Amino acid sequence: MRVIADFCLVPLGIGVSVSKEIAACERVLADAGLKTKLHAYGTNIEGEWDNVFAAIKRCHEVVHAMGAPRISSNLRFGTRTDRQQSMEDKIQSVEQKRQW
Amino acid sequence: MRVIADFCLVPLGIGVSVSKEIAACERVLADAGLKTKLHAYGTNIEGEWDNVFAAIKRCHEVVHAMGAPRISSNLRFGTRTDRQQSMEDKIQSVEQKRQW
Amino acid sequence: MRVIADFCLVPLGIGVSVSKEIAACERVLADAGLKTKLHAYGTNIEGEWDNVFAAIKRCHEVVHAMGAPRISSNLRFGTRTDRQQSMEDKIQSVEQKRQW
Amino acid sequence: MRVIADFCLVPLGIGVSVSKEIAACERVLADAGLKTKLHAYGTNIEGEWDNVFAAIKRCHEVVHAMGAPRISSNLRFGTRTDRQQSMEDKIQSVEQKRQW
Repeated sequence: MRVIADFCLVPLGIGVSVSKEIAACERVLADAGLKTKLHAYGTNIEGEWDNVFAAIKRCHEVVHAMGAPRISSNLRFGTRTDRQQSMEDKIQSVEQKRQW
Repeated sequence: MRVIADFCLVPLGIGVSVSKEIAACERVLADAGLKTKLHAYGTNIEGEWDNVFAAIKRCHEVVHAMGAPRISSNLRFGTRTDRQQSMEDKIQSVEQKRQW
Repeated sequence: MRVIADFCLVPLGIGVSVSKEIAACERVLADAGLKTKLHAYGTNIEGEWDNVFAAIKRCHEVVHAMGAPRISSNLRFGTRTDRQQSMEDKIQSVEQKRQW
Repeated sequence: MRVIADFCLVPLGIGVSVSKEIAACERVLADAGLKTKLHAYGTNIEGEWDNVFAAIKRCHEVVHAMGAPRISSNLRFGTRTDRQQSMEDKIQSVEQKRQW
C-alpha cells in the first residue's frame, strides 16, 4: 500500500529551537530512501506504507537519543485504491484548476 | 517504545456519512488489544508503538475493503523517555491544575 | 456557521510539563461559553465559528503571557450544511454502528 | 500576533476528486493578501492572525457554496513571542543544519 504523508515532529523539553532535530529527521527519511519535500510546517513523504512508518519511528528514536525527553508529532497520511498518485500529481492537479 | 496517539480517519468518495467506517476501525483497534477511547473528533489510542501502528494500517486496509477508494487520516502521537504516562494520567494532570 | 473542533496546543520552551498551560486554556474555553470536552490528546469544542476561533486566539495569548515563547497547535475542525450535528451525535452515531 | 499555519481542507460528499475545491481555497487565500505556498498535503500560510483565520473561514464558506455538504479540515499553527520568523526562515534554519 502506497502512502503520501505529511510529518510534523515537535520535540519538547529542549528549548524553542528545534531545527537541529528536524534536520536529523530529514536525514533519517533520506537514508530510508523515501521521497521527501521539506516545507515550512512539516515534510511531505511518499513511499510504501511500511517504509514510511518505519522511518517515522526511527525519527522518534533518533530525536529522543539526541536528548529530547518528549515528542509530540502530527501526521497526515492518505491512501487510495482507485489510482496511483504522486506528490507532484497532487500539486499539479490543484495548479491546473487554478489556471482555469 | 510506548505511544499515546489520537487517530482521525476520513474516508472519501462514499458520501457524507462515515460512522460505519469509524465503527469498523473501533473494532480493529479493540481486536488489536489496544486501550482506546472514542471522542467527538477521533480516538485516543495507547500501546506499544508497533501494535498501535499495525492497527492503524489495518484500519486503512479495512476501510478500503469496505468500499472507500480514498482515505485521508490525521494522527497525533507522543512518546516520552522521562517517564511512563497513561491516557488517564494526561487528563488527570490537567484536571488537577484546573481545580487550583 | 456551527463548528465542531478538536484543539491540541503545545507550548515550547517551558520544559516537558505543559498541563498548567492546558488547564489555563480549558478555563479560556469555558469562560467563552463554549461546550468542551477534554481528552487525552486535545479538547473537543463545539460552538459558533467566530466564538470558537476567538477563544483559540485567546488561548495562544494567555499561554504566551504565562511565559511560553513559542506555541505549536493542531486543530481539526468540521462544518456541515446538510444537517445540525452535536459532539454527542457524532459519538452516538459511531456507537450505534458498533453494536450492530 | 503573527502566525505561520499549514492548512489542509478535506471536502466530503463530493467524490474522490477535491482539487477544484482546493484551487478555490488557493484563490481565497491569495485574494486575502496572504503569503502562501501549496505543497502535496496542504498549504503554508503566513500573516496576521485575524487575516489568516478570516481567510480560512472564507474557504469553508466557499467550498460549501461549491456544493460540498461537509468539510473536515486540519490546521497546524504556530506563534512566537521571542522573535519574528518567516516561512523561509523556518526552512532555511533546518537546511543549514542539514549541511553541517
